[in-house]
Amino acid sequence: MFLYTKNFDEQKARAMEGLRRALAEGKVDDDIIPLLDKINSLENYFTTSSCSGRISVMEMPHFGDKVNSVWLGKWHRTVKVEEVLEAIGRHEKGQLWFLIRSPILHVGARTMEDAVKLLNLAIGLGFKYSNIKSVSHKKLLVEIRSTERMDVPLGTDGELWVDEAYIERIVGIANSQVRRFKGKLKRLGEEVEKIENAHQSP
Amino acid sequence: MFLYTKNFDEQKARAMEGLRRALAEGKVDDDIIPLLDKINSLENYFTTSSCSGRISVMEMPHFGDKVNSVWLGKWHRTVKVEEVLEAIGRHEKGQLWFLIRSPILHVGARTMEDAVKLLNLAIGLGFKYSNIKSVSHKKLLVEIRSTERMDVPLGTDGELWVDEAYIERIVGIANSQVRRFKGKLKRLGEEVEKIENAHQSP
Repeated sequence: MFLYTKNFDEQKARAMEGLRRALAEGKVDDDIIPLLDKINSLENYFTTSSCSGRISVMEMPHFGDKVNSVWLGKWHRTVKVEEVLEAIGRHEKGQLWFLIRSPILHVGARTMEDAVKLLNLAIGLGFKYSNIKSVSHKKLLVEIRSTERMDVPLGTDGELWVDEAYIERIVGIANSQVRRFKGKLKRLGEEVEKIENAHQSP
Repeated sequence: MFLYTKNFDEQKARAMEGLRRALAEGKVDDDIIPLLDKINSLENYFTTSSCSGRISVMEMPHFGDKVNSVWLGKWHRTVKVEEVLEAIGRHEKGQLWFLIRSPILHVGARTMEDAVKLLNLAIGLGFKYSNIKSVSHKKLLVEIRSTERMDVPLGTDGELWVDEAYIERIVGIANSQVRRFKGKLKRLGEEVEKIENAHQSP
């Protein structure tokens, strides 16, 4: 059971159509597009969703309520303290958080063997939280994910719990995390192309 | 390939021996022991490692250097502000962090079908970051993990970046996360027992 994805090529065609639409609408993080192209050029894989990693300032009605949360600022790159302070300045109500999220890619694989091969490549390149996210008749989904993350509560209902010097500190840490995961993405782009050739060699 | 774990019963026996040793040495989080017992009483699963979730205060030489990090305080339960302040008082050098980690269980499964069944049960009970962590001839490993997490930088080299009022705030948020994941663990304990019966029913 679940050893391979049913109608893989059909599914891939549909995913590629979705990607083209998302690209046209500017909904894909620019700096991850070359990596997506590389993965999608492989015979046995296709990307279904992705984020290149981000720093953000977010307002949530209460913890975990993502549905009603609002981004006051979001950057897929290193940030300046001023940008973060400006986003914080827009805070009015609910819980205010400073967040970092590692890059995340969801990749459909043709067979379980293909899935495991990509999983092991990703883990070896520092994407240590990578895993097989779902296994069903419809889909074999590999999640590529790294460890960088911060969840820092900053205040609530317009009141700030920390001072500007603290924001400066955490922006410094955040930027070093961003530099780290960008490096990992770069290496993944270099190595992922070889994954099918390795398979075909005698 | 990798549809089932080779020598499952042998592996399980070895894991159970390791668990007994860990229990004897007091290395297993008390409140998760009944859940481990339930999982290990099932024919097709065994636990290989686990943490019941925790709040901690940690000192790291620099970000991500877990090897040389030191716990100044660690609790598998809700905490009092005073306990956290006491731990922070022991900080001397390196980066100081306040952390929350969700419960995490690693469970070996006999077959891929068993793995997927447990994965889907866990996700359905709110352990949304659950996944299949590794797939090899030796092991089919399900990771059960939830979303609760905080990583809050508090200071560096003995200097604190935040005040006591802030610590109070984040302890409040942390405690509500702990209550949430304890509830999820409880439900998992109630539901996991049924997983093999469901399988055997006509």
